[in-house]
Amino acid sequence: MPSTSRPIIDVHGHFTTAPPELAAVRVAQLTELNRPRKQTLKLSDDQVAAAVQGQLQAMRERGITHLLFSPTAARMGHDIGDERVSLYWSQVNNDLIAQVCRLFPDQFSGVCQLPQSPGVSPKNCLEELDRCILELGFVGCNINPDVSGGVPPLTPPLSDEWWYPLWERMVELDVPGMIHASATRVPSMHLNGSHYIAQDYAAVVELCASRVFEDFPTLRLIVPHGGGGIPFQYNRQRALHLGGYLPTTTPFEQAVSHLYFDTAVYDADSLDMLFRKMGPRNVLFGSEMFGTAKAIDPQTGRTFDDIIPMIEQSQVLTDSDKDDIFWRNALRVYPRLKKRLSLGA
Amino acid sequence: MPSTSRPIIDVHGHFTTAPPELAAVRVAQLTELNRPRKQTLKLSDDQVAAAVQGQLQAMRERGITHLLFSPTAARMGHDIGDERVSLYWSQVNNDLIAQVCRLFPDQFSGVCQLPQSPGVSPKNCLEELDRCILELGFVGCNINPDVSGGVPPLTPPLSDEWWYPLWERMVELDVPGMIHASATRVPSMHLNGSHYIAQDYAAVVELCASRVFEDFPTLRLIVPHGGGGIPFQYNRQRALHLGGYLPTTTPFEQAVSHLYFDTAVYDADSLDMLFRKMGPRNVLFGSEMFGTAKAIDPQTGRTFDDIIPMIEQSQVLTDSDKDDIFWRNALRVYPRLKKRLSLGA
Repeated sequence: MPSTSRPIIDVHGHFTTAPPELAAVRVAQLTELNRPRKQTLKLSDDQVAAAVQGQLQAMRERGITHLLFSPTAARMGHDIGDERVSLYWSQVNNDLIAQVCRLFPDQFSGVCQLPQSPGVSPKNCLEELDRCILELGFVGCNINPDVSGGVPPLTPPLSDEWWYPLWERMVELDVPGMIHASATRVPSMHLNGSHYIAQDYAAVVELCASRVFEDFPTLRLIVPHGGGGIPFQYNRQRALHLGGYLPTTTPFEQAVSHLYFDTAVYDADSLDMLFRKMGPRNVLFGSEMFGTAKAIDPQTGRTFDDIIPMIEQSQVLTDSDKDDIFWRNALRVYPRLKKRLSLGA
Repeated sequence: MPSTSRPIIDVHGHFTTAPPELAAVRVAQLTELNRPRKQTLKLSDDQVAAAVQGQLQAMRERGITHLLFSPTAARMGHDIGDERVSLYWSQVNNDLIAQVCRLFPDQFSGVCQLPQSPGVSPKNCLEELDRCILELGFVGCNINPDVSGGVPPLTPPLSDEWWYPLWERMVELDVPGMIHASATRVPSMHLNGSHYIAQDYAAVVELCASRVFEDFPTLRLIVPHGGGGIPFQYNRQRALHLGGYLPTTTPFEQAVSHLYFDTAVYDADSLDMLFRKMGPRNVLFGSEMFGTAKAIDPQTGRTFDDIIPMIEQSQVLTDSDKDDIFWRNALRVYPRLKKRLSLGA
């Protein structure tokens, strides 16, 4: 039984339940890394519909009215093979997301994987971004800040002009991006235990110390998982901005106001800290369904990612704040979603 | 004017104000990386005493009665040169800390830098650890979990048996260690903006998913900076432990109870979260004086690292909890400190 009657847009869902035929395509590709070629995955609408029944059921039960859906982050695999491998794999994944969105246009909108590749300028992503936004009707993209997974060639920081061609095209298309890492080769960094959180955190540090939002004032970037540990270390970042440790004199609280954060944090008090520190206008509902937090919490009997009740019951939010977080901010940040849903905001 | 009359032991201070002659030794060493040789730094007691006047003044003003003092973390420089370079540089730094502690035995105790080196087993650290503990009278050590600074050869995770020779010797000596990264070569990781926090976080993930505390039940490790973002992401880690993502079936809350955390977080509400999540018996006062947070917070007029009033005024702690955090836990975790200070606990 949903605990709320307002619209709820979840901006952070990956197709982790895709049919195994998708993996078969990948394995075939990896078997011929020396001769990359375009691949296609033909799944019947029935097969695809069956693969998202779990999401649809959870959405009904929890009251999630719409889900932004993207390929599994951990399997974007930008670190493997050359840029053709990354492109062909991205296309297969994005086409599959498009099929889901065509079957369930009221429930799903697409967010694309980009064909990033180690050492390759993000210029190579623009054509696939255009295709996903303009032809497939997607509303956003995911951006991997650590393309090679932590081994040479290491990725320039998000503060670097190396990224500017991508920011330019996103601004032209009026499309936001979620900063979301994929796999890592670094042995000490557990994928969703440590690596994602480390990359979220570093993304905020880099973007806040950069000229990115001076140069692209309308660029919109979402940092998932509540910004990693940023809300908890908020004054550490303020101190660094004031202490001359970074190439900026802008106070952290001002710099960070350009960024958006999702709610894929699974503690009520951490969510409250996120709301207090970042402000309800900068936070979008996202539960990362289904992924890291799909286990059942024995303390509550609910899955960890079932966080809507925590937000509904938060004492630090007004009712209007909750509307912002649950749906109004999403429509502001994702204008193509607003158009797609024909909802007022 | 100190805000408290109890003893306050600060477990996290680096000699960031060392005289420039120390840097001159390092530059001379780096000029002859091809022919590493033992170096000495001869500073008069007056020079060394002058270099810690800022710390002594801040301690008097804030009411810090004792400071655990170690070489500057960012300049341990394990990533540069071979293991002889690391050894000779560690020795110079540790000898300088010993000189401070000899001059001010009531105010300072030593924590050593280890001669870690990329791709080299931590066995190479045991002799210098022995020297610092048994000859120089130090009470702990710092352990860099990312020896090479993020480039090949990458360091095995802290969960790996590669580290066991170091844990064994620490247990034999009854000496705790603080997990503290040094410099990184990874362009996207700002040193004290992102890298330290990422390494703190990953250390907790690795140690909690490992057999380390089954194999070394009396090993004591301190994770600085409040555990990076761990308290904020507490339920993410609980979910991963329950969800089969890690090679353990031990619940996170049980696994993490083996670890200690310091208070080098500069937000009152983050400190409260740290106390609530980790428990006051697992938190030690540490302010990282003087480092990242030495700037003045315009909101308070005090430096960010002046956190004693936040802890004294915390509503989630009893008076006895505050004694634990300010001094009793330090004497439990650092038995050689207790002996050195001849204090009851």
